[in-house]
Amino acid sequence: MTERLILNEKVLSENDRLAALLRTRFAADRVTVLNLVSSPGSGKTSLLERTIAALGGEFRIAVVAGDVQTDNDARRIAAAGNAVVVPIVTNGKCHLDARMVTDATVDLDLGATDILFIENVGNLVCPSSYDLGEDMKVVLLSTTEGDDKPLKYPGMFRRAGLMIVNKTDLLGWSDFEMGRVREAARSINGDLTILEIACRTNSGLTAWYDWLRAHVHSKRTYTDTNHGNQV
Amino acid sequence: MTERLILNEKVLSENDRLAALLRTRFAADRVTVLNLVSSPGSGKTSLLERTIAALGGEFRIAVVAGDVQTDNDARRIAAAGNAVVVPIVTNGKCHLDARMVTDATVDLDLGATDILFIENVGNLVCPSSYDLGEDMKVVLLSTTEGDDKPLKYPGMFRRAGLMIVNKTDLLGWSDFEMGRVREAARSINGDLTILEIACRTNSGLTAWYDWLRAHVHSKRTYTDTNHGNQV
Repeated sequence: MTERLILNEKVLSENDRLAALLRTRFAADRVTVLNLVSSPGSGKTSLLERTIAALGGEFRIAVVAGDVQTDNDARRIAAAGNAVVVPIVTNGKCHLDARMVTDATVDLDLGATDILFIENVGNLVCPSSYDLGEDMKVVLLSTTEGDDKPLKYPGMFRRAGLMIVNKTDLLGWSDFEMGRVREAARSINGDLTILEIACRTNSGLTAWYDWLRAHVHSKRTYTDTNHGNQV
Repeated sequence: MTERLILNEKVLSENDRLAALLRTRFAADRVTVLNLVSSPGSGKTSLLERTIAALGGEFRIAVVAGDVQTDNDARRIAAAGNAVVVPIVTNGKCHLDARMVTDATVDLDLGATDILFIENVGNLVCPSSYDLGEDMKVVLLSTTEGDDKPLKYPGMFRRAGLMIVNKTDLLGWSDFEMGRVREAARSINGDLTILEIACRTNSGLTAWYDWLRAHVHSKRTYTDTNHGNQV
């Protein structure tokens, strides 16, 4: 087991090294990079479809769409509107790592990109351990999954900066309580921002778009200041 | 990467060795062992609660309940009725392995157990690779996750013997189509048995109980014959 632990540490430190290189590249081009994580079927792809349809004219959006098998998500996203989409098929691997994202973004014109979404594999455990050079992990949780998920999968909720609760149109069809999930999430991560949406009915998405705008703006401002200091 | 692959193979072959020992133990006591796998929030715990309430008098049921963090599921199951429950908290690990199940079952009286359910970690990827000595993997999929999941997570659906589609009471609230999920699942695994249930409304559970009864019966008969041949 010690041998395995040492190897895991080696794999993770190699990942951290590549993630740091990615972060430098993203920062140089002032790209807002969000790593979308969730269980399978929480609505990551639907959220991206809505977002691209709404903001594809306002921002230059790129998506790296990871899946264990099939490029179905990438094709759905590409059909949603004005965005550059790069599929990653992990062939059975349970998460994206920094090398996959490095390979997927090598031909992306980051200078012509405002927001890069990385749609991770649907998995609430393993993707939490892999830094992809992102600004923030955004965790989606659908109401149909139950309000106990932050307590049961704390690693992911601890490492996320934003939790989006999706499928609020199905509240009332289960014993999911918004107050309980907020309390659970905040007990794991007191700094977590929480948004409530329903992709199917277009509810709550304006707040998400505003959150995105603020983020892109602050990233540009921060990076401008940063560049100013360096010169 | 080669070093990592070799180590993964070592870990899996060590797991297979322990799983084979578990299988021998389970067979000796004619225990029907089912490994329940699914995304987080598909309803594994709810299904076990219903099953124990309905069949806890008819069969001697034991449950090994795995979770990344908290023993909430184990406590829910223990409250559901007449069953022996052993929690496993994996502390961040994304799946159960045969060593954890060996440790969890060491004090179980298998001679006084008809059915052992192993409730795996909510994860549609990693648990598919780990044999736990079970008779069969049973995969749950809730309608709210979308009918594309068998194509996107084929490893799990290929290795399962039964797929239970849960939350059919929420059909009509999404674009999930039963015909499409059946076709997708069968394209991955032509031998898959498929049941449709809604734990919340108690719908379809009779067929599941009958399936369980048939399984316990055939396991006893098969093992009886097997023992006969060996003696």
